[in-house]
Amino acid sequence: MALAERLSKLGTETAFSVSLAAAEWGAKGNRIFPFHLGDLDLATPSNVVAAMDRAIADGKTGYCPAAGIAPLREALANDIGSRRGLTYSPSQVVVQPGGKPVITKFIQAVMNPGEEVLYPNPGYPIYESQIEYFGGVAKAYRYLPSSTGFSIDLDQVRSMITPATKAIIYNDLQNPIGSESSDEERAAIAQIAIENDLYVLSDEAYFEMRYSGTSTSIASLPGMQERTVILYTFSKKFAMTGWRLGAAVGPQDIADTITKLNTNDESCTTHFVQYAGVEAILGDQTEAAAMLDVLVDRRDTAVTAIAEIPGMTVAVPEATFYLFPDVTEAISIVGASDVADFAERALHNTGVSFCTRRHFGRPQPGEDREYIRFAYSGIKSDDIRDGLGLLQQWIANA
Amino acid sequence: MALAERLSKLGTETAFSVSLAAAEWGAKGNRIFPFHLGDLDLATPSNVVAAMDRAIADGKTGYCPAAGIAPLREALANDIGSRRGLTYSPSQVVVQPGGKPVITKFIQAVMNPGEEVLYPNPGYPIYESQIEYFGGVAKAYRYLPSSTGFSIDLDQVRSMITPATKAIIYNDLQNPIGSESSDEERAAIAQIAIENDLYVLSDEAYFEMRYSGTSTSIASLPGMQERTVILYTFSKKFAMTGWRLGAAVGPQDIADTITKLNTNDESCTTHFVQYAGVEAILGDQTEAAAMLDVLVDRRDTAVTAIAEIPGMTVAVPEATFYLFPDVTEAISIVGASDVADFAERALHNTGVSFCTRRHFGRPQPGEDREYIRFAYSGIKSDDIRDGLGLLQQWIANA
Repeated sequence: MALAERLSKLGTETAFSVSLAAAEWGAKGNRIFPFHLGDLDLATPSNVVAAMDRAIADGKTGYCPAAGIAPLREALANDIGSRRGLTYSPSQVVVQPGGKPVITKFIQAVMNPGEEVLYPNPGYPIYESQIEYFGGVAKAYRYLPSSTGFSIDLDQVRSMITPATKAIIYNDLQNPIGSESSDEERAAIAQIAIENDLYVLSDEAYFEMRYSGTSTSIASLPGMQERTVILYTFSKKFAMTGWRLGAAVGPQDIADTITKLNTNDESCTTHFVQYAGVEAILGDQTEAAAMLDVLVDRRDTAVTAIAEIPGMTVAVPEATFYLFPDVTEAISIVGASDVADFAERALHNTGVSFCTRRHFGRPQPGEDREYIRFAYSGIKSDDIRDGLGLLQQWIANA
Repeated sequence: MALAERLSKLGTETAFSVSLAAAEWGAKGNRIFPFHLGDLDLATPSNVVAAMDRAIADGKTGYCPAAGIAPLREALANDIGSRRGLTYSPSQVVVQPGGKPVITKFIQAVMNPGEEVLYPNPGYPIYESQIEYFGGVAKAYRYLPSSTGFSIDLDQVRSMITPATKAIIYNDLQNPIGSESSDEERAAIAQIAIENDLYVLSDEAYFEMRYSGTSTSIASLPGMQERTVILYTFSKKFAMTGWRLGAAVGPQDIADTITKLNTNDESCTTHFVQYAGVEAILGDQTEAAAMLDVLVDRRDTAVTAIAEIPGMTVAVPEATFYLFPDVTEAISIVGASDVADFAERALHNTGVSFCTRRHFGRPQPGEDREYIRFAYSGIKSDDIRDGLGLLQQWIANA
């Protein structure tokens, strides 16, 4: 008996090894500063929890439709549409157990084996995994440092298009780098998609996780709504990562396909959790808004502290809860052999734990700068100050 | 832009059309007797709900490990093992958002395109759908009427084995037919699996949903644990269908593979729901046991009523919450053209709504009897009596 051959093409998230190393170091009595966690240590708004409790008391513990309960689909259609200047019918909204399932279901819905899908690197590692798992060709596009942070290498994207290109995965408000497209960059991606008749998966997990300005969805550009599937999640804005609640929003034929995949894969998303989602969208926003205040304070604390660290520079994103500092010089100062060695030494010298650029895809040809990712979603401002202070001392004294 | 070709091989559950027809008939002011629902109208035990509330208050709203929380994996390993006379390590238990995800993940883990998987027909339609969706050859084996209900046509199963056969899906305590293997039949299936080096998916959704006797898992037969993946679900015993909580339990390499699929597909199962699962397994069983009392009363009520219906005969299963009466003569009495026509006429003449054999796979060659499925999980005894009384009158007066 041998397992199936397709498994050789299945990737994973390697960041768990960072959590493991941090846990092991902590178990030895060391103080850990967990900048590696892309999770929130904040409580879900209490009105959202209360809505779930009411749903259970009301008997919402049986099966519900595969595409989700009607009130949630309607609330999402209105909310997602109005925030993007678009009109969606509830039938175009398919509830999911989290945002992540939208990735595999989008790939399954649009990509044939042998077809090519462009995806961001550095980026969320599941993009590449699912493209390759379902027999496609995963083609990574890169970001270049810019005056305001990072920008997509549009020339590279254009050069990668072939007749076999079927789709592009686009993650404006980007994990891990925290960057955001300019209007021009977003329009250029849209133009490439339209000219080459591509589907687009727009990962909008951080669309409302921002501190100033407003987000723009690529789906709202002319000619884009009909080719774009939006990945929506409750995880970030409402501190609901562990609730597993999200949605795919897109063209009707893809929505219908994803509903059929739901029927095959998990029947439905947890019934009463969907009522919590209705409250999250339609109910009082006080606690959700307060979370953004906490997060912006953490961001500012981290940015201030990083400015003191020798050999480390960082752009300041107005969205996401990530910072992606260039640590090329710092690596050199401490004499680390590479960014992985730098991370290990940092953990053992300071307790500061973080992912590196390598956890978000293989470095691309010509990439000559090294980066790490600080997530400030799971660590309080005082701990940010303490941890990055220790990192500063360690590097300054090297 | 065209959607992916693989979608042409994706099946679905057709039973939703029965729900729709019933809802439409009910919307016209007619009383409906919902025997079509494979869902429970009973409340989840209150101690299970309370455990979930405690978990939320305790901050279990963030991500958890892809394979599930340690206390649930340990509780399941002990509980599932001890009920089957087997020893499982917690590492062999992978928590899922329901029992259903085990089907697709088992198929993905063991079956290559072009390989054959045997599955029961009549049976749960997702088996065939997932085998074919992932490029396998779905080969249906049948059940024959026996003195005690139904038995697997073992000669047919043996005749279907080829060098390309990779696995067999086995659903002892069967949906839709409610039957249970004799010890001899179960041993014969095991022997076939061992002699031909097959993997086995043992769908044990109804293992503890029984009214007398004890269940036996095919995994407990010699040589079977190492080739069997058990589909476990909280849905039936604890009335948790809409909670979406289940597990895959099997050989370590398959458990590891399914964990990696979890990481790709949905990150993890809803965090706090897993604490509810711990309470369901380890906590007070009073309410769960009371549900079985309710269900056996419904079964007896239905069996008594069916005995009065002309042209309808039924075996009396000691497990599941289904009855699968032979309605061949009843179809003839009312002059229906086939079983689908019979179901439609029954709905419009009596309000009694049910699935037919056709919702559980295409009839096999030589199949000359017609069956329907009565689910008594979602309808109270008084309504069972009323509905089947109307059915009796309709047929008796035809």
